[in-house]
Amino acid sequence: MIPRYSRPEMTAIWSPETRFRIWFEIEAHATTALAELGVVPKEAAAKVWEKGREAVFDVARIDEIERVTKHDVIAFLTHLSEIVGPEARFVHQGMTSSDVLDTCLSVQLTRAADILIADVDTLLDHLKRRAFEHRMTPTIGRSHGIHAEPVTFGLKLAGYHAEFQRARARLVAARAEIATCAISGAVGTFANIDPRVEAYVAEKMGLAVEPVSTQVIPRDRHAMFFATLGVVASSIERLAIEIRHLQRSEVYEAEEFFSEGQKGSSAMPHKRNPVLTENLTGLARMVRAYALPAMENVALWHERDISHSSVERMIGPDSTITLDFALSRVAGVVDKLVVYPENMQKNLDRLGGLVHSQRVLLALTQKGVSREDAYRLVQRNAMPVWRGEGDFLTLLKADAEVKAALSDLELEELFDLGYHLKQVDTIFGRVFGTD
Amino acid sequence: MIPRYSRPEMTAIWSPETRFRIWFEIEAHATTALAELGVVPKEAAAKVWEKGREAVFDVARIDEIERVTKHDVIAFLTHLSEIVGPEARFVHQGMTSSDVLDTCLSVQLTRAADILIADVDTLLDHLKRRAFEHRMTPTIGRSHGIHAEPVTFGLKLAGYHAEFQRARARLVAARAEIATCAISGAVGTFANIDPRVEAYVAEKMGLAVEPVSTQVIPRDRHAMFFATLGVVASSIERLAIEIRHLQRSEVYEAEEFFSEGQKGSSAMPHKRNPVLTENLTGLARMVRAYALPAMENVALWHERDISHSSVERMIGPDSTITLDFALSRVAGVVDKLVVYPENMQKNLDRLGGLVHSQRVLLALTQKGVSREDAYRLVQRNAMPVWRGEGDFLTLLKADAEVKAALSDLELEELFDLGYHLKQVDTIFGRVFGTD
Amino acid sequence: MIPRYSRPEMTAIWSPETRFRIWFEIEAHATTALAELGVVPKEAAAKVWEKGREAVFDVARIDEIERVTKHDVIAFLTHLSEIVGPEARFVHQGMTSSDVLDTCLSVQLTRAADILIADVDTLLDHLKRRAFEHRMTPTIGRSHGIHAEPVTFGLKLAGYHAEFQRARARLVAARAEIATCAISGAVGTFANIDPRVEAYVAEKMGLAVEPVSTQVIPRDRHAMFFATLGVVASSIERLAIEIRHLQRSEVYEAEEFFSEGQKGSSAMPHKRNPVLTENLTGLARMVRAYALPAMENVALWHERDISHSSVERMIGPDSTITLDFALSRVAGVVDKLVVYPENMQKNLDRLGGLVHSQRVLLALTQKGVSREDAYRLVQRNAMPVWRGEGDFLTLLKADAEVKAALSDLELEELFDLGYHLKQVDTIFGRVFGTD
Amino acid sequence: MIPRYSRPEMTAIWSPETRFRIWFEIEAHATTALAELGVVPKEAAAKVWEKGREAVFDVARIDEIERVTKHDVIAFLTHLSEIVGPEARFVHQGMTSSDVLDTCLSVQLTRAADILIADVDTLLDHLKRRAFEHRMTPTIGRSHGIHAEPVTFGLKLAGYHAEFQRARARLVAARAEIATCAISGAVGTFANIDPRVEAYVAEKMGLAVEPVSTQVIPRDRHAMFFATLGVVASSIERLAIEIRHLQRSEVYEAEEFFSEGQKGSSAMPHKRNPVLTENLTGLARMVRAYALPAMENVALWHERDISHSSVERMIGPDSTITLDFALSRVAGVVDKLVVYPENMQKNLDRLGGLVHSQRVLLALTQKGVSREDAYRLVQRNAMPVWRGEGDFLTLLKADAEVKAALSDLELEELFDLGYHLKQVDTIFGRVFGTD
Repeated sequence: MIPRYSRPEMTAIWSPETRFRIWFEIEAHATTALAELGVVPKEAAAKVWEKGREAVFDVARIDEIERVTKHDVIAFLTHLSEIVGPEARFVHQGMTSSDVLDTCLSVQLTRAADILIADVDTLLDHLKRRAFEHRMTPTIGRSHGIHAEPVTFGLKLAGYHAEFQRARARLVAARAEIATCAISGAVGTFANIDPRVEAYVAEKMGLAVEPVSTQVIPRDRHAMFFATLGVVASSIERLAIEIRHLQRSEVYEAEEFFSEGQKGSSAMPHKRNPVLTENLTGLARMVRAYALPAMENVALWHERDISHSSVERMIGPDSTITLDFALSRVAGVVDKLVVYPENMQKNLDRLGGLVHSQRVLLALTQKGVSREDAYRLVQRNAMPVWRGEGDFLTLLKADAEVKAALSDLELEELFDLGYHLKQVDTIFGRVFGTD
Repeated sequence: MIPRYSRPEMTAIWSPETRFRIWFEIEAHATTALAELGVVPKEAAAKVWEKGREAVFDVARIDEIERVTKHDVIAFLTHLSEIVGPEARFVHQGMTSSDVLDTCLSVQLTRAADILIADVDTLLDHLKRRAFEHRMTPTIGRSHGIHAEPVTFGLKLAGYHAEFQRARARLVAARAEIATCAISGAVGTFANIDPRVEAYVAEKMGLAVEPVSTQVIPRDRHAMFFATLGVVASSIERLAIEIRHLQRSEVYEAEEFFSEGQKGSSAMPHKRNPVLTENLTGLARMVRAYALPAMENVALWHERDISHSSVERMIGPDSTITLDFALSRVAGVVDKLVVYPENMQKNLDRLGGLVHSQRVLLALTQKGVSREDAYRLVQRNAMPVWRGEGDFLTLLKADAEVKAALSDLELEELFDLGYHLKQVDTIFGRVFGTD
Repeated sequence: MIPRYSRPEMTAIWSPETRFRIWFEIEAHATTALAELGVVPKEAAAKVWEKGREAVFDVARIDEIERVTKHDVIAFLTHLSEIVGPEARFVHQGMTSSDVLDTCLSVQLTRAADILIADVDTLLDHLKRRAFEHRMTPTIGRSHGIHAEPVTFGLKLAGYHAEFQRARARLVAARAEIATCAISGAVGTFANIDPRVEAYVAEKMGLAVEPVSTQVIPRDRHAMFFATLGVVASSIERLAIEIRHLQRSEVYEAEEFFSEGQKGSSAMPHKRNPVLTENLTGLARMVRAYALPAMENVALWHERDISHSSVERMIGPDSTITLDFALSRVAGVVDKLVVYPENMQKNLDRLGGLVHSQRVLLALTQKGVSREDAYRLVQRNAMPVWRGEGDFLTLLKADAEVKAALSDLELEELFDLGYHLKQVDTIFGRVFGTD
Repeated sequence: MIPRYSRPEMTAIWSPETRFRIWFEIEAHATTALAELGVVPKEAAAKVWEKGREAVFDVARIDEIERVTKHDVIAFLTHLSEIVGPEARFVHQGMTSSDVLDTCLSVQLTRAADILIADVDTLLDHLKRRAFEHRMTPTIGRSHGIHAEPVTFGLKLAGYHAEFQRARARLVAARAEIATCAISGAVGTFANIDPRVEAYVAEKMGLAVEPVSTQVIPRDRHAMFFATLGVVASSIERLAIEIRHLQRSEVYEAEEFFSEGQKGSSAMPHKRNPVLTENLTGLARMVRAYALPAMENVALWHERDISHSSVERMIGPDSTITLDFALSRVAGVVDKLVVYPENMQKNLDRLGGLVHSQRVLLALTQKGVSREDAYRLVQRNAMPVWRGEGDFLTLLKADAEVKAALSDLELEELFDLGYHLKQVDTIFGRVFGTD
């Protein structure tokens, strides 16, 4: 996590202040539940809330205590007792540190997921708007980087919209994966604490109850969460690479918005580089990389070890902050993307009609030419065009074997752009519903 | 994929014979749909089914053709025309290779997912049976590899059951991710083929329609699929490592079944090694590793490139076959696991009552001792026990400060195993429902 | 490993036949050394060599025995005793299975490294030849996919040559990492075998002695080996992606050789796709992925566990075979690459002289214009060119502020291609030495 | 990178202050070289040094400029001109941003490597001292977590020493990989700058000259660097896991130093957990994960894109800071490790003499018993011992078939610990040289 690639709302989730606030809420709710069960005095619970509700926890002081105890939750509880007074001894009754730590992490990750889902929603809005804007802007479809057949630019964007709809659904599922609460004690047996405390805290914190915790919430949940983030980041990468391709000098069909005062190159003043999407390509690599240690974290020893902790202290913030930043950045890129329909048309025309080759192939077979022969006929007229030696339609008309199957008029009718775009509405209907 | 770690049913999904059979079905269903739409003669479609339904596709012959065409689908279609005769020219009308390849991959992956889900079901059965068998078998719970407080062996297994219930749900979701069909032509515009063909084939092959395909089915779906497999493998690793720990000489609470004739070591005849679970640990590393290239596959260029293909030719089989083998192996390990309750009890007794330290701590605070003081009192009596210098209960009784708060009788009541196991049924209810 | 991406020489290294042959050599050399030390009868050693030297080990028979013993080395030794007779009992004296397995793996990996190094040498030959062929073929240099300043195509290739010189050096270092022999017994103490046996076998097998083995050769060596392969694969990816870019329709400066009869697309006969380099992009992802489980293999438990074994059974062949195939394929691509210098020139001219913008910038500052002003002047004349509205030189000549600093003649002299290529020989000298 | 896992010396390398200081040095040295070549006035170069040598670069001011220019090097140069005055226009002549950025990164990474190498040296010192301290401390060697044969604790440590000697050599090689300088201009052609400037700056900054740069220093170098760090981290993980095993309650042969005031568990006061080595296990996962995006960074587009930049801004600091912290932590753990030789002896005795089983096996074969029979004899006497039903030596003496081959005296002589430790000095000699 570095400030350059961080946004404040997501960063705030991972601040010590937020963490201690969530710890307090968990501890205080648990104390309330314990009081209702008669385990601790109701006045103690009331006092904890009274003193702690508005308290500002002193991060430096807690750090200072931790340097002695080498234990963060104990340090926090010690500081809490400085705030609350003697009633603080009823806090954390029968609980273990992980009850607090893991439930807190669940809260942080669900909040992070909420931001990520909102990010995707913004991106979806921009994609939809731009897709409709360019619903019928013709552009060449490319496979293998080679011109294939016409599509529209809106269709490209509709495809990304569908992909980020899936990303959204995956984030919702990932959120559910980690939205659980554990208050089950040292090895998860509830020996020292009633399961009703867990149920109470879970409900208050907006979480489900973890069916079996073993001091810790099982880490397969977190692995699934971070793996999902890696997949979402990979979809960002796909969109970023598309734009990088469209902006390259020889293609130049679209361009990242280039603000006033921005300099593309210290040496070459004419340059306008797709730096945002290049940056996104790199960020995607990072979010993906974080999935791996999350998966290695699953196999904790016995009821738990703490090897996952250092990993999560890093990837918890790094993965969510980076993905939040990347989603926001890619949404901005889509929002302001400068599109050049005339260049799209120019590129579309570049291959001298070759984009219609398949249609000619099909027409030949429908006239009774064998598939192999049709392929041969089309290919022998396509190759000169490919080499820049002529126009496809002219060559076809001059080919005796083709002529035998298709008249000039029939050939001309095959060179029609509208033919390729007739199902655009169907596909838009699939993606956006009927508008 | 190597035979040693492969099972026949899963391996069969990835054989050339299966692949060509699925290709045939996709092509033949598409031809039927085309015939119903009046695009090709109904007799042609009938002929394709008639000749192809029982045909054995000659893998060697197809390979031979591919060596010339360097294109696998064209090679197959050429071979198909050798079988079907001239009507074969109506096959593949308006389609592109990826329509066949990607829809086939979807079929293969959904079948693979079905096997994996069945594997998990078997594992769940064994886990449940063994969990109930050892529902009340006491054993020490360990955090950080250090004795903490008592649990039961059944509780451990119940935790794995809950984890593999999640694994199952994830596999079901992963299956849905890749269960789509695309018959949309060269760049996904349906320029040369009616969307109703896609709908027809999808329904026949048990798939959904891909909302937007761009010649290919988008690879975020496959990334999610393989990432999920990596997470499931990580859960296997956790179970494998637990058993490896339990079998180590100093712990020896459980042991992989050791068949007659099996030799543990060529040099040391007494050894019985947890080789199955060690093997599973390695296999998990592999399944996890395959998630990464799957994520890198997402960002294909423009409407598609073919960089994903070599990756999928490898990880398609490797990932599913390895995970199938691993799930089957781990199910067998659980099924036949040799459990030593008496050794569990011996280990439980090893720390001279220290496992009850938290209860003493809580009792002290409930008697009005401050948390800090209580901690100090317990720790000063625990440390000699830890060093093997005495019994915890005896020492506590002899400690004046403790005595001031807790009578001998009260102390003795704190050393009760049942106290720790009183919520086992609650947890079992959460995992298995009410039995 | 799949046949499609395998070459026979590398595949042979990983066949059971090769493995058993190496096992035999290790066992037989060890027996010879034991005989020279007087531990076993010299006749026994002689008999082992006599019977085994030309023996064909029966893989099916060994597999059959292993199904009972569940131990591969014991199965082999049992089969060996069937070939050698009673003297076989002197084989493997004081050794443990890993002595054989790990030393064999070292032999296999060093042989694999030798092939990979030879592969790189072939690639280097092609790169050098093509680099000199195109030493002075001008082409546009691109940063961010945007035209920057002129380079030569030979210079591009020289850069790859330098990179694969580094790849070669890394492979040589990686080979040294794993070229060690361990014959040290059950836990590496030489309790039952003299260290001189290890020294003897090491020398015969072309390996160094492992300083400390703990039954196994430490896996940090293998991790370094496979990580190195991942880096080499990443360099292949860079070269592959360069060619994919050069072949794309809008750039079309170079093209993979397209053989007679090859079909680019089943639907679009005109297409010539960079399928080899796309394939290489995918293969690189795989070789890279294998580095991770190799690193996870390092932390074996205590003196050893066997979790690394399943990983190595897979990545040993998969990583080396895939990289061998990829190196060979990329060498072929470079060898036969079709280069279009005229298209390079066309692209070079595309931006209306903008590639000289930096030179103008520098000339302005040398005439006393401040850097900021010079940048502004150049940018305001570059931007219309960028939008296709005019020629850079003409615009500059018409700019009063530019005119004040640079005469028309001075401006014209700045638009000289030779200026950019004057150091090509210097760079070639660095890469290829003085020719 | 988070403060908790950071040490100041390494962190300082990555501060903006250090970065701007290195940028200044590169620019100033380049200006000097340009002055000596007569390209810029000597007074200008002198002025740059005079004003900049002691200057404190204002990070906030540079950030402020960058917010407008969106280009960090231009922002720095603008700020530099504020400090230096009009002569600043001679700075950066003919250079491009990457000349500064990439050469700076090389300087930072070589400095980081120097710290890491020094860290390893400290670790090696501790390992050596502790290895000699425990050269003859007997302990059980374990394979598969099962008792095998005796080793000494010093031997274990010697093995780690050998492994970290390799780690050191790898870091030295990794340092050489990235210790290059590039001052070659916009696309690496030296069009606007003399190669002698690069040579001059390289020498001053302690770097080699990059043979071919393409605006950037090729990223295969960095990939190799970060992959190496991942391997070194994996060796730390192996040592960390060894200690975690040794500290577990049932083994308890060694223990991390536990400082006064440290609390193991908020709930269980008796616990002393191996938290440092668990933490190291997690940190190793992170350093390993960073290797992957570094490898993905290699395949930049054409002469360069900037996708590597965001990755390196993160893994540059994260990987080196985390590894530095981990090396320092593991060195401290080894330094202060509390070793319990008496517990080692107790564990050694636990299996009732089974550790001598191989020796008995060998003795039987040397007496003419076939290997298969010997194995059977040993196993049938070992199995009851394994089940806790008797003592191995006693059982062997009572076995008629064994008796037929080995007398009681001969059997007793086989149960000798010294037999296993006789080569300890040989191995120490290999690792540490002759002391």
